[in-house]
Amino acid sequence: MQNFIFPKISNLSILALAVYLYLFDAVVAAPVNNQEEVKKNIIFLISDGMGAASFQLARTFRQVRDDLPYNDLLELDNHLIGTFRSRSNNSYVTDSAAAGTALATGKKTYNKGINVNPEGVPIGSIGEALKLQGYTTGIVVTTRVTDATPAVWAAHAKDRAYEDTIAEQLLGEHPLGRVPDLILGGGRTYFYPDTEEGGSRSDDRNLIEEVQANGTWTYAGNREEFDQLQLGENVTLPLLGLFADKDFPYKIDRNESIYPSLLEETQVALKALSKATEDTEKGFFLMVESSRPDHAGHANDAQTISREVLEYDDVVQEVLKFVQESEVETIVISTADHETGGLSVFGTKPSHYQAILNATHSSEFLASAINDFKNKNDDEELTTFITNTVLEEGLGLQDYTEDEVNRIKSLSNFDDEDEILKLSAAIANLTSSRSSVSWGTTGHSAVDVDIYSFSNSPYLTQKILNTRDGLAGTHENTDFSVFIKSITGIDLDEVTDLIQDINIEK
Amino acid sequence: MQNFIFPKISNLSILALAVYLYLFDAVVAAPVNNQEEVKKNIIFLISDGMGAASFQLARTFRQVRDDLPYNDLLELDNHLIGTFRSRSNNSYVTDSAAAGTALATGKKTYNKGINVNPEGVPIGSIGEALKLQGYTTGIVVTTRVTDATPAVWAAHAKDRAYEDTIAEQLLGEHPLGRVPDLILGGGRTYFYPDTEEGGSRSDDRNLIEEVQANGTWTYAGNREEFDQLQLGENVTLPLLGLFADKDFPYKIDRNESIYPSLLEETQVALKALSKATEDTEKGFFLMVESSRPDHAGHANDAQTISREVLEYDDVVQEVLKFVQESEVETIVISTADHETGGLSVFGTKPSHYQAILNATHSSEFLASAINDFKNKNDDEELTTFITNTVLEEGLGLQDYTEDEVNRIKSLSNFDDEDEILKLSAAIANLTSSRSSVSWGTTGHSAVDVDIYSFSNSPYLTQKILNTRDGLAGTHENTDFSVFIKSITGIDLDEVTDLIQDINIEK
Repeated sequence: MQNFIFPKISNLSILALAVYLYLFDAVVAAPVNNQEEVKKNIIFLISDGMGAASFQLARTFRQVRDDLPYNDLLELDNHLIGTFRSRSNNSYVTDSAAAGTALATGKKTYNKGINVNPEGVPIGSIGEALKLQGYTTGIVVTTRVTDATPAVWAAHAKDRAYEDTIAEQLLGEHPLGRVPDLILGGGRTYFYPDTEEGGSRSDDRNLIEEVQANGTWTYAGNREEFDQLQLGENVTLPLLGLFADKDFPYKIDRNESIYPSLLEETQVALKALSKATEDTEKGFFLMVESSRPDHAGHANDAQTISREVLEYDDVVQEVLKFVQESEVETIVISTADHETGGLSVFGTKPSHYQAILNATHSSEFLASAINDFKNKNDDEELTTFITNTVLEEGLGLQDYTEDEVNRIKSLSNFDDEDEILKLSAAIANLTSSRSSVSWGTTGHSAVDVDIYSFSNSPYLTQKILNTRDGLAGTHENTDFSVFIKSITGIDLDEVTDLIQDINIEK
Repeated sequence: MQNFIFPKISNLSILALAVYLYLFDAVVAAPVNNQEEVKKNIIFLISDGMGAASFQLARTFRQVRDDLPYNDLLELDNHLIGTFRSRSNNSYVTDSAAAGTALATGKKTYNKGINVNPEGVPIGSIGEALKLQGYTTGIVVTTRVTDATPAVWAAHAKDRAYEDTIAEQLLGEHPLGRVPDLILGGGRTYFYPDTEEGGSRSDDRNLIEEVQANGTWTYAGNREEFDQLQLGENVTLPLLGLFADKDFPYKIDRNESIYPSLLEETQVALKALSKATEDTEKGFFLMVESSRPDHAGHANDAQTISREVLEYDDVVQEVLKFVQESEVETIVISTADHETGGLSVFGTKPSHYQAILNATHSSEFLASAINDFKNKNDDEELTTFITNTVLEEGLGLQDYTEDEVNRIKSLSNFDDEDEILKLSAAIANLTSSRSSVSWGTTGHSAVDVDIYSFSNSPYLTQKILNTRDGLAGTHENTDFSVFIKSITGIDLDEVTDLIQDINIEK
C-alpha cells in the first residue's frame, strides 16, 4: 500500500484523512517530540529456521492433538505484519550468521560472517548501539550462546566457527566493554578448557572461573542454580547462565529437571531486566531465540519441529502477557532468520498428523540411543531395541514393516560417527512418510520469512505498521535496523568506529 | 496487532491517538456516513496455486534473467498485507472449488463443491450479491471459464465437474438472470455439442449460437475477434469471449497470435467495465484469475510456474496503473486459493536458476510433442527428437546424460494417454533437479497463502488494513466476504434465499 499517490481525495472524514496522511506519509505529520528518548523496551524474538509451513504444521498438529476448532491459532498468528527477504551478500540462501548480521547491523555480508562486512571489517550492531545508549541488554537461547544468532547482538568474528573468541567478547573482551547484561543458554564448552571433560577451549582459559573470581559476572551453571534465580526475582546482573555444554536437548526430548525451558529462561530474563531498569532512563533490549527448530529442519524431523514451534509460541504468549502488564512502552518483533528444510505439509485428515503426534522423541535422540545400545550389546538384541524402544516407544509406530526395521538396522552399523546423520534421517523419514509432510533439502531454503509484532505503545505500533521505515509488508532483513534506529536514534556508524580494534580472528 | 487492550496511553500526539483509536477499534470512531453507497470498483486478482515460494522463485529468476539488483521486487511484493488460511470443510488441504466457495460466499464447504454448503444447498455469492446491488461484473481467466475459480462468482453446482451446467448458469439460466456482464477465457468445449469437433456437451445444445441468436450476448471466439474489441474500446456488453476449447496454453508455450494474454484480457475488461459504468451509480466487480500456475504446480514444472507468476505480475502492474488513473474509488485484492506442489527453492547462485531460464517450453508441451512425434515416426528418429528438440531446444540443456535420454525414451512408449503425465513429470524433473528447487507433492499443500492489496481510496485502504473486519494479518479465507460486505453492504443471506431453485446437478 505504500508510496501510493492518490489522484483525488473524496468522501473522507477529517479523521480518515488524518489517518491516511499519517500512515502513508503523503505529508509529514506533525512529529511527536523526542519519541526516541522515551523509555522503552525492545524484545526481539527469533525462531531460527521456522518458515510459514512449520507454523502451519504446528497449528494443525495442535488442533488435532487437543481437538481444537479449525480456526484455532497460534498466538503468533494474531500478530503477522509482513515478511523479510533474507538472501546474504554471497548467496540467495542465507546462513544464520549472515542473516543475523543483516538484522543486527543493517548490512548484508557473506555466509558465516558475524558482524563483519563483506571485506571482513567489523561493523556496529544494534545490541552494541543500544548498550551505548544506556539500554540493559539480554540474550536468551537454547543453543550455544556463542552460536551465530546470539553472537550478532554483541560480538564480531570473521567466521561463526570462532566460538572461543565470541565467548570472550560476550563476557567483555570488547572495545565497548561488556555489552550483554544477561546471557542464558548453552555452549558452556567454549568457556572452559579442553583439559577438563566437556570443555573445548585450547587456550587453557576457564572464563567462567575468571569472571566469578574477578566479580564481573554472577553465574548459574545447572538447574538447581537456575531455580535459585526464582524466575528472575533473585538475579544479580550481569548474569551468565550456561546450562549445557552445547545445545539444550530439543523440547520433545528435554528433561526439564535438568534443563530450563526456553519459557523459563524468558521469564527470568523479563523479570530480571525489568527490575534492573525500574529506575533507569532507558529500558531493556532482549533477544530470545528458539534456536533448535533450525536443527530439526536440517534433520527433516517433523515431530521435533512441531514441538519447537509450540514451545516458541508459549514464549510469545508469555511475552504478550508481559507487554500487556508493563508500564514501559514495549515493542515485540518476531521473525526467523531463514527457513530450514523446505518443509511442505499436505496431510488432508487428522490421521495424517497421527505419526507426528505419537512420536515421543526426536530422530536425533533415537539415533543416538541406537548408537549407544549397539556399542554395548550384540546384534540380535539390537533388533529388539529398534522395534520395541525406537519404533514402538520412540516413534509410537505399530505399522512398521520388516523392510523398515532392516533399513534402520543396516544404517546402525557404522564406525564413522558422522554416519549417525544417515541413521537419524532414516528415522525421521519414518514419521514424515506417514504424515504427508515433505522436505526439500537438509539445508536452508530461500523462501521469505514472516514478521510478527505487537506493542503496548500506539506510537510504536504506528511506527512499525508504516510500510516505509516500519516493517509492515515485505522488507529486506536489513530494514530491521532501520526500524530500530527510527525508534531509538541509535548510530550504528558510530559503533563501527568504536569497535575497529576488536579481535575477529580465531 | 488486533484486539489489543493497552493499559495506558502516554506520550501521544492527538493525531497518533486518533490513528490508534481509528485503526484498532478501541473506541468506535465516528463513522463516515454512507460509505457503502459510494461508487466503487472492486478488483479481485487470484493466482491459482501460487504460494510464497513461487513468488520468491519468480522474483529471483527475473533478477538473474535481467541482471537486476538483489532487492528488485515483483510489483505484487509492494502490496503484501496478510495471509489466508485455506482449509476446506472436509480437508486440511482445500481444492479450488471449496477455496473459491469460501472466498465467494464466506462459508467453508467440501472439496469439489461450487457455492453449495456442506449439505449441498446453494448459497449466495459475492458476485451475485454485487450484481443485485447494481454492480457491473466481469470474469477473466486463462483456463475454462467454467472451472471452479471463475464459477464461484456466478454459479452453483454440487460438483465442479458439472461444467455444462455451470456454462448454462454463467450465461443466464439462473434465478437472478444473467450475473456476469463480461466473460473472457477458455472452456468453449462446454458451450457446444459433442457432435461437433472440440465440443463436449451431450445435450446437443450450442449455447454460443443460442445467445448470439437471441441477442443476449455479444461473442468473440478467436484472436481476430478479440483484436476487434480494441482492448475494450469496442465492446458491447454483455460480452462472452471464448478463445480456447479448454485451457489457454501456458505463458511459456503460448502463441499470442492465436491466444490473447491474461494481460490483454485484463486490459479489455478494465476498459469495457469502466466505460459501461461511467454514468452508473455503482462501479464494477472484476475477477481476474491467473489460472494455470496451479497446473504448473501439479506438473512440478519450475520453468513454467516462473513465467506464469511473471505474467500475473504484469497484470498486477496494469491494474495498479488503472487504479492510479481511475477517478472511481477502487480497491484491488490479490490472493491465491491455495499453494500447489509444495514448492521449495534453495538455489544459492545465479547458475542454479539457469536451467529454468534456458527452458523454452513447459514439460506438458514437450511431453505432448514427444507423443505426437512417436505416433508418426520410428524409434530411432525418436531418440534424435528427444535429444535435439526436447532436451536441447525445449529445455535448453547441453549437459544431459545418456541415462536421462533413455529414461525419457522409455517413458515415451505408452499406450494409455494417462501415462503422458509420467513422461511430463520426468521432463519437468530435468529442470528442477538442475535448479535446486524441489516439489513435495503433485497435489495442493496446506500452507497459508499471501494477501496483497492496494487502493486509490484512503477509506478503503484503512478498511482493509484493519485486522478485524479488514484483511491485514492472518485470516480464514471466509473473511474475504466479510470485508466485501463491510465496504458494500451486500446481503449474502438474501441472495441465498433467492437462488434456492438453481439447478446444481449435472
